[in-house]
This record gives sequence, C-alpha cells and structure tokens, in this order.
Amino acid sequence: MKANSIQSISWQEDHVRILDQTKLPVQEVYLECRDLESIAAAIQRLSIRGAPAIGVAAAMGFAFACRQSTAQNNDEFFRHLDQIYERLLGTRPTAVNLRWALERMLSLARQHSSAGIEVLQDILKQEALKILNEDIEINRRMGRLGQEVVPDQATIITICNTGSLATAGHGTALGVIRSAVEQGKNVCVAACETRPLLQGARLTAWELKKDGIPFELITDGMAGHFMKTRGADLVIAGSDRIAANGDAANKIGTYALAILAQEHGIPFYIAAPVSTIDGSTQSGDKIPIEERSGEEVISVRGTQIAPESIKVWNPAFDVVPNKYIAGIMTEKGILRPPFQESIHKALTDKNN
Amino acid sequence: MKANSIQSISWQEDHVRILDQTKLPVQEVYLECRDLESIAAAIQRLSIRGAPAIGVAAAMGFAFACRQSTAQNNDEFFRHLDQIYERLLGTRPTAVNLRWALERMLSLARQHSSAGIEVLQDILKQEALKILNEDIEINRRMGRLGQEVVPDQATIITICNTGSLATAGHGTALGVIRSAVEQGKNVCVAACETRPLLQGARLTAWELKKDGIPFELITDGMAGHFMKTRGADLVIAGSDRIAANGDAANKIGTYALAILAQEHGIPFYIAAPVSTIDGSTQSGDKIPIEERSGEEVISVRGTQIAPESIKVWNPAFDVVPNKYIAGIMTEKGILRPPFQESIHKALTDKNN
Repeated sequence: MKANSIQSISWQEDHVRILDQTKLPVQEVYLECRDLESIAAAIQRLSIRGAPAIGVAAAMGFAFACRQSTAQNNDEFFRHLDQIYERLLGTRPTAVNLRWALERMLSLARQHSSAGIEVLQDILKQEALKILNEDIEINRRMGRLGQEVVPDQATIITICNTGSLATAGHGTALGVIRSAVEQGKNVCVAACETRPLLQGARLTAWELKKDGIPFELITDGMAGHFMKTRGADLVIAGSDRIAANGDAANKIGTYALAILAQEHGIPFYIAAPVSTIDGSTQSGDKIPIEERSGEEVISVRGTQIAPESIKVWNPAFDVVPNKYIAGIMTEKGILRPPFQESIHKALTDKNN
Repeated sequence: MKANSIQSISWQEDHVRILDQTKLPVQEVYLECRDLESIAAAIQRLSIRGAPAIGVAAAMGFAFACRQSTAQNNDEFFRHLDQIYERLLGTRPTAVNLRWALERMLSLARQHSSAGIEVLQDILKQEALKILNEDIEINRRMGRLGQEVVPDQATIITICNTGSLATAGHGTALGVIRSAVEQGKNVCVAACETRPLLQGARLTAWELKKDGIPFELITDGMAGHFMKTRGADLVIAGSDRIAANGDAANKIGTYALAILAQEHGIPFYIAAPVSTIDGSTQSGDKIPIEERSGEEVISVRGTQIAPESIKVWNPAFDVVPNKYIAGIMTEKGILRPPFQESIHKALTDKNN
C-alpha cells in the first residue's frame, strides 16, 4: 500500500517524530520532539493537524513526557500526569479527539495507580502505540464500509486534508477515497484548496499526487460552480467534533459546501471515527470554535496579500447542522438520520 | 470625496496611465501605455480589470491607438480601426462592457466616415473621455438609487473588487457602499478575499482602508459561517455580463455566495451599469466563461502553495441564475423580477 508510506507521526527511541506539515508540499521536514513542550508546540503550530492525528499526537506526547518525569513516588507522578494532561489539552480547542485520547491515557494510568512508575511509563507508551495502530485500523474499516455509497466513476468533492497526514494513516474522508481506489473504482476528486492555511492545496494534493489518484485542485469559491457545471456524486468531509445530534464541526468552508451540495442534490457525508463524536455536547452551537490570528489570512506563506493592520475574521472551523448531512461514515458503518438515535447506538453498542 | 483620489486609468498627452492592480496593495505602480499592444496587454494581464474599467480601457486604447495610425486615407484608417477593435476585443471574453465600448467607438467613427483622419482621431479621444466621465456619473447615480435597499447599520457582504479600481471611479457594488457612507449610514462590510487572484484582499481591502470604511476581510469559505453566526443585511456583487433574463456572470465564487444568501434569507443584489446587460445573450448558460492558467491557483504572488504539475480547474467567472437575485442595481434604478421585463424596459426606455 502506497498510502502507508506517509507517516505523520511515529515513536522513536528518544523522540517523537512528526512530519512538519507547515512545510509541505515544498519541503518534507521531520521534527524530532524530545519533550512535552516541543510536542505541544507542534500541535499548536499545526505541524501536525487533523482531529485523529491530534489525538495520536496527544497520546504520544503524554506517554513520552511522562518518561521524563522526575517524580519520586506515585503521588508526584500522577500530579505530573495531570500537568501534562492540561498542557496538551490546551493546545487546540475544537478537535474532541485530543481530549478523548488524553482521557483514555489518564484513565488507564489511574487503573494501574499502584504500579511502579516505570511500569506505568511502559503501559502508557504501549497505549499510545495502540491508539496509533487502532486509528489506522479504524480508518481502513471506515473506508471499506463507506464504499456502500461510493459509485464507480464517482466524482467526489472534499475539503481540507483528511488523509494519512490528518490521521495515523490511510485517512478519514480521504481514506474512503483511498479504499474506493483499492477496490478498483475509477474515482475523481475535486480538492478544495481550503483557505486560509491551504491544507487542500498543500496536503491533500500532495497525498493524492503521491498515490496517483486522479484529482483537480479548485479554490473554495469554485465548489458551487463545479457542482453546477461539472457535477459530483458526493461530498465527503472530515470532522473535528460531532455533537450528540449529528451536527459536525469541521474546517471553515465545510458549512458552505454542505449547503451547496444540498442545493445541487448531492449527498454530503462526514467521515470520522466514533472517537470524534462528543456525546456530552448536545448540539453544534455548543462546540467551541477556535479563532486564529488574522495574519494567517493576510499573508500566504510569508507573502503579503492584503493591506497591513486591517480587521480580519479568522475562525478555523464551522459547524454543519445535521439536516445537511446524509450520513456519518464511521468504523461502525454509516450512521444515518435521525442521528440522535444512530449516534447513541454507536456510542453505546460496544459490539457493533 | 476621498474616493476620487483613486484613478484606475487616465488619459495623458502621450500615454494612457494605468494603475497596475497586480502590484497592489504592496506597491502603487503606474503603467505608461504608449501603444495598442501595451494597453491590450494591461487588460489581459489584469493590470486593469473590472467590467466597467475594462470598457473604459478599451475605449481609451481604441482612441489612443488610432492616433498612431499611419493611414494615408479614410479607407486605410477604417481598416486600421477594425484591427484595433479585434485586438482589444480579444483580450478578455466574459465582460460585455469591452465589446459595448468598442462598438460605441467604432460606430461613432462610422457615423463620421467622411471626416478627415485628424478630426476622427479627436472625436474618438473625446468619446473615450466621455465614456470615462459617464461611467463615474453612472456609478454615482447607481450608488444613490441603490440606497433604497441599504438600511442604516447594514452589514454588507461583497466579493471581488467593484470599486474605483474596477471602474472609472466610485464603483458599482462598492459604489453603493460608498454612497451609503456618504449619506451617513454606518455600514460594515465583509469583504471576501476572492481566490485565486485575491481582488477582495488586495484591492477592495485597499480601497476600503483608504476610504476609512469599516470592514473585515474573510476568506471565501467563511461567507456561509459569517451569514449564520454574524448575520448580514444584504450581499452586493458586481457583474461582468448580465443576460436578457437577468442571469449574471461575475467573479468565481459569486454563484456560491448567492446560494448561501438564499439559504440564510439574505437578499442578494447585483450592481452594474446598463452597459453590462447583454440583450443579445438570452440566458446565463450562453455567457462565455474565461478559463485561466492553473498557475494562478498553484502560486500566490510567486509563492508556491501546491505541488507542481497537478491538474487545476480555474474558471475566472461563474453565473448566478436570476432566481437567486433580488434586484439589479443600475443607474436607471433597481431592476426587479421578472427580469425579462424589467431588463427589456431598461434597455429600450431611453428616458428612464
């Protein structure tokens, strides 16, 4: 599988290796993160991004940082774990996988609270690696199950990057596309460039080109005209947090894409692991939306494109209300409306 | 009026002076065009752009180039005029103002076909200046008449650049906003950056900042989220060609903006002079859409943002079907649906 050649993050003996996505597609640079702060900064600066990848990075950061603990006893060690938890949780507000992964790590540690520090450190390392491997497995399963609604010869519109770079491997929305190609379907992708940070142009185009999957790059403003004049079979987007009612937060521009899809009778799907569902958030209006610096809009990779000192609005995400969503592709199959029910079932049914 | 300080184009004794908009907002550079080819190239390279400004530039180019004719007699002179006409008409395919201005110039010359060459050259120069001055007057009138639907405290979303830079002065959609400010209304503008060439970020932001009109810059993908979470009173866009049924071609992304406006119950207006209406084009699907080089998407002002050698789709315009348009703001008032009738009336009623 070509897809596996792209590794957004990996555990090395003395560091966590992170592909610096801010440098793509021009340079392929790897960061060697050797402490908590460098891992937290890599998440914050978007060197690693994408909800599932953020979850994996947080778990790895947690496991790696606790190995550097100077705690003399378990009490001190657990106080240190709490600090690591808080530092990593504060890196980004929207993706729920971050909290999900950190809670999984912390709760596992608490289950073994009487074990020695070295044993705990090893348990946490194994758990981080398990989260990474599970993520790849989940994405492959999601990709397979998503095929139910992907016709042969499908034209698929997508936004942002939801591929190997956004996950531990394979991808969510892009994973469904990869699985379609693996099954021999002749799909064609329209990749929205995804301003301001151009994850579509920089990362998705890079992955699709690497994998030899046919695609066209379009600006975000072209999606409507593409649907009208070229047609599309479906839109698939990732998500950073899905509320209990199915409202889904994703990269800014996804909301518009969902409305445009509806207007053109094109089904709009979200592809995300069940860990992206936040059962404690009742609806999309409760999802915190990260606002980032206006500088990201005013400058494109160091090149100024607007006058200085102007007011810029730069929300990094928006929320697609459930009424625009045809289905949520997960590793437990495609969840369908009414989402309140199908999501509840997915969250509670351990065997599904 | 501050607005008048921005002159996209002017007639000088020995050249046509064009503000090179490709360099804005970082540099304010003026081109001195001294022959037909340099004026045609300035239109083609988008140093001057915006449907009304293209019309003025074509008229000026026509008048300026014919002064350099070496024709010995009127037959030769008119053959030269035909060549100038064809060269300028071929610069850009979508904006109908180009053809409108050139036909006006050529038909005026033909009306004086027995006049001497020097007299004809002078008549054409005067006509080009008349088109320029008329355009400013038309925009001011359009701006005044458009106030009917602009409330005080209005939040207005716009796309591309439709200001002094896109016209001989004042502007179309941005002219309506300027007129609102002149009348003391506290408007606030959300300017879509308008990828790929960023006319919103580079030019509209520059004009609004210069005029001290409150605004926020947003990426094109943020417009839907802006409408949902911040709200807006109206959307006003320009147009490059309006068909007889009211379908309006404009900068790529306008179609999506119109659909988003409808979904949020926000009225969507086109602001354009009657010269932008092409009575001979029955509907929008007959409007030729310019496709430009993919390089415009892959590089932002020289900075590479996507992998090289990938497929890019880069239509410069899209078409808003009349059903999404609440009204067309013109110098003859706001044309309302059914547009077939209101447009026919505007085109035929000389006294309106």
